[in-house]
Amino acid sequence: MSDLRKTSVQDLLRSTDLDREVLVKGWVRTRRGNKYVQFIAVNDGSGFNSIQVVANAEQFPEEKLKADGVENGAAIAVRGQLVASQGKGQTVEIQATEITVYGSADTAEYPLQKKGHTLEFLREIAHLRPRTNTFGAVLRIRHAMAFAVHQYFNDHGYFYVHTPIITGSDAEGAGQMFRVTTLPEQNPPLDEAGHVDYKQDFFGKATNLTVSGQLEGELAAMALGKIYTFGPTFRAENSNTARHLAEFWMIEPEVAFNDLQDNMDLAEDFLRSLVRYALAHCPDDLQFLNDQYDKELLARLQFVVDNDFKRLTYTEAVEILKSAKQKFEFPVDWGTDLQSEHERYLVEKHFKKPVILTNYPKDIKAFYMKLDDDGRTVRAMDVLFPGIGEIIGGSQREEDLQKLRTRMQEMHVPEEDLWWYLDTRRYGSAPHAGFGLGFERLILFVTGMGNIRDVIPFPRFPKSAEF
Amino acid sequence: MSDLRKTSVQDLLRSTDLDREVLVKGWVRTRRGNKYVQFIAVNDGSGFNSIQVVANAEQFPEEKLKADGVENGAAIAVRGQLVASQGKGQTVEIQATEITVYGSADTAEYPLQKKGHTLEFLREIAHLRPRTNTFGAVLRIRHAMAFAVHQYFNDHGYFYVHTPIITGSDAEGAGQMFRVTTLPEQNPPLDEAGHVDYKQDFFGKATNLTVSGQLEGELAAMALGKIYTFGPTFRAENSNTARHLAEFWMIEPEVAFNDLQDNMDLAEDFLRSLVRYALAHCPDDLQFLNDQYDKELLARLQFVVDNDFKRLTYTEAVEILKSAKQKFEFPVDWGTDLQSEHERYLVEKHFKKPVILTNYPKDIKAFYMKLDDDGRTVRAMDVLFPGIGEIIGGSQREEDLQKLRTRMQEMHVPEEDLWWYLDTRRYGSAPHAGFGLGFERLILFVTGMGNIRDVIPFPRFPKSAEF
Repeated sequence: MSDLRKTSVQDLLRSTDLDREVLVKGWVRTRRGNKYVQFIAVNDGSGFNSIQVVANAEQFPEEKLKADGVENGAAIAVRGQLVASQGKGQTVEIQATEITVYGSADTAEYPLQKKGHTLEFLREIAHLRPRTNTFGAVLRIRHAMAFAVHQYFNDHGYFYVHTPIITGSDAEGAGQMFRVTTLPEQNPPLDEAGHVDYKQDFFGKATNLTVSGQLEGELAAMALGKIYTFGPTFRAENSNTARHLAEFWMIEPEVAFNDLQDNMDLAEDFLRSLVRYALAHCPDDLQFLNDQYDKELLARLQFVVDNDFKRLTYTEAVEILKSAKQKFEFPVDWGTDLQSEHERYLVEKHFKKPVILTNYPKDIKAFYMKLDDDGRTVRAMDVLFPGIGEIIGGSQREEDLQKLRTRMQEMHVPEEDLWWYLDTRRYGSAPHAGFGLGFERLILFVTGMGNIRDVIPFPRFPKSAEF
Repeated sequence: MSDLRKTSVQDLLRSTDLDREVLVKGWVRTRRGNKYVQFIAVNDGSGFNSIQVVANAEQFPEEKLKADGVENGAAIAVRGQLVASQGKGQTVEIQATEITVYGSADTAEYPLQKKGHTLEFLREIAHLRPRTNTFGAVLRIRHAMAFAVHQYFNDHGYFYVHTPIITGSDAEGAGQMFRVTTLPEQNPPLDEAGHVDYKQDFFGKATNLTVSGQLEGELAAMALGKIYTFGPTFRAENSNTARHLAEFWMIEPEVAFNDLQDNMDLAEDFLRSLVRYALAHCPDDLQFLNDQYDKELLARLQFVVDNDFKRLTYTEAVEILKSAKQKFEFPVDWGTDLQSEHERYLVEKHFKKPVILTNYPKDIKAFYMKLDDDGRTVRAMDVLFPGIGEIIGGSQREEDLQKLRTRMQEMHVPEEDLWWYLDTRRYGSAPHAGFGLGFERLILFVTGMGNIRDVIPFPRFPKSAEF
């Protein structure tokens, strides 16, 4: 078969150049038929839809196909004529002239033989689940969203910056961290005070996995102007929920000379363009997820594209929540952090659209956020989405050296760990702003899936680092 | 200034719409002039070239500019008329009407005041070095190459897969690993045998930072067909060289139904298209690096674009090396791994072009490579580049379950750790191939920089995890 190059299933399905010899390679999704003809659905992962291979029983008797292992899960090559389909559900099909089996999948053993596996079961065989309709769709959408992120920023003059994964500073305080070490696992060297002597560790100091690339991203923004990060981040919290992962990917744009208003404009335009990209580039996969899991998915995505986000301050939101007729589990009062129930009330019941809350009390936000003139609130912003809650958190940053040092002292952030960060305020300081988008939160929203473990190929969570 | 939106320096430099009011925000690179006029070069990171701001002494006396801190490194906003330049070296300039200083940079303190800092010194202030010509250029090229990677694969129907960073398997044996843990740093819990009881660790098992996403990438390729990874990988080796990092980024495409020939075609087309992209999109930054550091850089890049790579087997290469007149430090004989001096001889002296070596002895390559029919060699390929040596390593993978298990036993790779990997050979196995491209090696080649610590924003190496 070496003279004819293989064509992807998606290219064949889109082809209008019929009645020609083609070669396709992929996996059998189904085989059915009768004693006259067999229909083999072949999928190569290039898209949601499989191509129908028609195998005439004269050349390909069912017994021979069975004996050769042409069953669900088998990897095969098919050579044949690409023709207009007489059947329903597809416009083209392949009239097979040659079928080669690379590897079969024993019907008695193959875990994906039967349909209708639960998502919980598929999580245990995460190495095989990309072969299912659901995870094929999710992973192709995930790819499309990652590419859309890079394309958006590239088109808008941003530079992609790789911030470090292994970090010597636990400065941001965004969460518990994983320790990274090459010291002996038992009896590590101790210093004179009896503490572990990290001077003898690989990096000569205690190191952890990063919780955010923001601080390093700010360094780059104060030189390159407009930057973004897109990399893995980590939380060592013992959270066994459908919303948390120990390892997840985060996107963090940072822009010199942007204020909070610019930051909101960017977040809104960015999110809306990502959703628009998904609708334009993943129609088959989205339609399947809409039909199979969430009948309102496509309508919800279109709604985000079509509607402005509602912008209001934290203080205004608290007033709305306090006068709401709904009974909340957690009480709301100015100064307390909003709970998921409050965020969802604002988004799903009160405004019925995405919401950007701004100007939170300084005491519930990070040290680096720019203090408002009232001295009580900071130029923070959270973008709240239906079904998801907070999808983006960001702020204008404090660019004034003295105010920043005061906030660090108040919040017990050690200056000596962040001398380099403070240098950006010492030399050529400028207003700047940015935000973080949890990539898996975005994928949850775009796919309509309910559990964050189902939107990353190999999820890491407490007691699980399989594959 | 709020009514007029800022324009990036690059957009202004390219503009043909002159004699209009503009607003630019950036950092002062130089200020010079006389008692009649001051020239301020402003750079906002959007590209290599700065824009010249002309400040008339009547409105902006030098003493006032000085007093306001309009000096090298200061962040400023300039409002003025964009006009055709009367001076040399630029086509447009700004006649300033308003200059605002956001943050100055004390001339006595600012580490980047003087020109001609060594790369070694700049490495110690990696938080500020992106503000220099050199690192601005390197980081913009790095961005361009990352985007070109994503664009190439997206355009060719590949799906980006995020493989895990924290991994429970040390299976590939590609190098020493960093331990990831949340156990107490002293006196961790022990099991009955007296070993550290990793069942009590965060993930319920011992975990490390990944050395490669390949094995998980193969899982995805056996479902989605054509995939690539692009993520951080780690080596805990105590290598203090100009070619090694403890944390670096790797790109690993993997393609179902590809053989070694397809793999070579992909590697060659991919590399050539990346270099072509750099030449097309980064002319100013490349020209600077060419003039400043490496007079042959542009010629070398063009050479890669214009010439096919030479392909030959390891066995043929050994014959060439054995009959070479050059004296090598390490002797060459069939079965030994080639050293850098051998690779560079082949590339730089013998063929004078990039080289792809294939079919290495099985004993010096990884367990997963497909055995050749002779039983002595495997379908490996290394792509060797001038000045760099190995830039890509890859192979066709062993798709036969029994042959793979035999190789694992011979090479002492525990099957129980890789049950999921073996499943791909149990169910619907197919030929497939892929390779790994060290992203920083690529950036070294494209920028002509000599030290790998200078092509990643915040390098991690032994005794250094600063910033």
